[in-house]
Amino acid sequence: MLTLYGSLESGNVYKVRLLLAQLDIPHRRIDVDQVRGEPRSEPFLAINPIGKVPALKLDDGRLLSESGAILFYLAQGSAFWPDDGWEQAQVLRWMFFEQYNHEPYIAVNRYLLRFSKNPEAAAERVAANAVKGEQALETMERHLRDHEWFGAERYSLADIALYAYTHVAHEGGFDLAGFPSVMAWLSRARARPGHIGLMQETSAEAVWRLGE
Amino acid sequence: MLTLYGSLESGNVYKVRLLLAQLDIPHRRIDVDQVRGEPRSEPFLAINPIGKVPALKLDDGRLLSESGAILFYLAQGSAFWPDDGWEQAQVLRWMFFEQYNHEPYIAVNRYLLRFSKNPEAAAERVAANAVKGEQALETMERHLRDHEWFGAERYSLADIALYAYTHVAHEGGFDLAGFPSVMAWLSRARARPGHIGLMQETSAEAVWRLGE
Repeated sequence: MLTLYGSLESGNVYKVRLLLAQLDIPHRRIDVDQVRGEPRSEPFLAINPIGKVPALKLDDGRLLSESGAILFYLAQGSAFWPDDGWEQAQVLRWMFFEQYNHEPYIAVNRYLLRFSKNPEAAAERVAANAVKGEQALETMERHLRDHEWFGAERYSLADIALYAYTHVAHEGGFDLAGFPSVMAWLSRARARPGHIGLMQETSAEAVWRLGE
Repeated sequence: MLTLYGSLESGNVYKVRLLLAQLDIPHRRIDVDQVRGEPRSEPFLAINPIGKVPALKLDDGRLLSESGAILFYLAQGSAFWPDDGWEQAQVLRWMFFEQYNHEPYIAVNRYLLRFSKNPEAAAERVAANAVKGEQALETMERHLRDHEWFGAERYSLADIALYAYTHVAHEGGFDLAGFPSVMAWLSRARARPGHIGLMQETSAEAVWRLGE
């Protein structure tokens, strides 16, 4: 059985959990709590020396890091990874956009405002991130004015990757009211078969604590 | 003929130029100078509304952004993209690592120290980036202690993606002397057939100015 390391609250972990739910793949999840610093703890560093979640472990012990790479690996042969080479490249284009232009601002502001002990100390950083995060949302809005999905003609890994932190952007202080096409796309994504919410555990998911 | 938009100095553009050289694919390069702000200029925004380089245009006018997605698209069927699904995922894992944990610190400090008009004003940011960039180099060093290449058993897109800004890390104030495995890997990469330097134009490359 596949083992996924990471916590419910993490959007990067949620991307993988959402795909696993939509593929209906049974798996074990070991809870590794970022807010409590568990990814950098000795028990987890013994599993993943780079101290990052999500991480996926195969039955034979091989380990894969980076949410985008894990999504790619799990989606091979499924409807979430297109057959056409050009569409595949466009799906990756949006997954790289998410990691470079979106997550470092939208996810990081969510983390700073919601989980950090002293958000006031980060006020300057939050303000700078807010500008860059708005730009990412504008890029998404512009694309969605004449596309139903990101990357491919149908719902794909690109939508899963972008959904994770966009749907909780308000927790990072972003107001999606100015991005109507983004809001409509979020609704379409939520209506896909097998969709689960960020905090929603599934019957395919057996949860263990790190160290158990 | 393929058209690549971007300047010689950009490491992200160089990744694509290096792959095109190693695949020996003739192409046209339109120079778009980041230091002069040309990616955000009207003539370029008419081509790529998100204002980013590199961008690759096919003969039929279709456009692809994001260096990682362009590398993926061009390398299909070549020796630079492995056949095995697990190795493909590991190649992508290092390409996402490069964009998330490496480029934002090592490439950005190179930009700030070498190209910005007032590097002193960015001293605090440069110092913070230096810490994160060192961490990325440590992750690479640890991997290379018992691997010849990143991601696959042989030289692949992961090595091309990581080579681009690692080999000019000194321009961002990073000293590679403490990373002997990284230095040895850089030498191995430089010895690959068809390798070109960052500022080296090739006979397969016809260079035009934006607006010509």
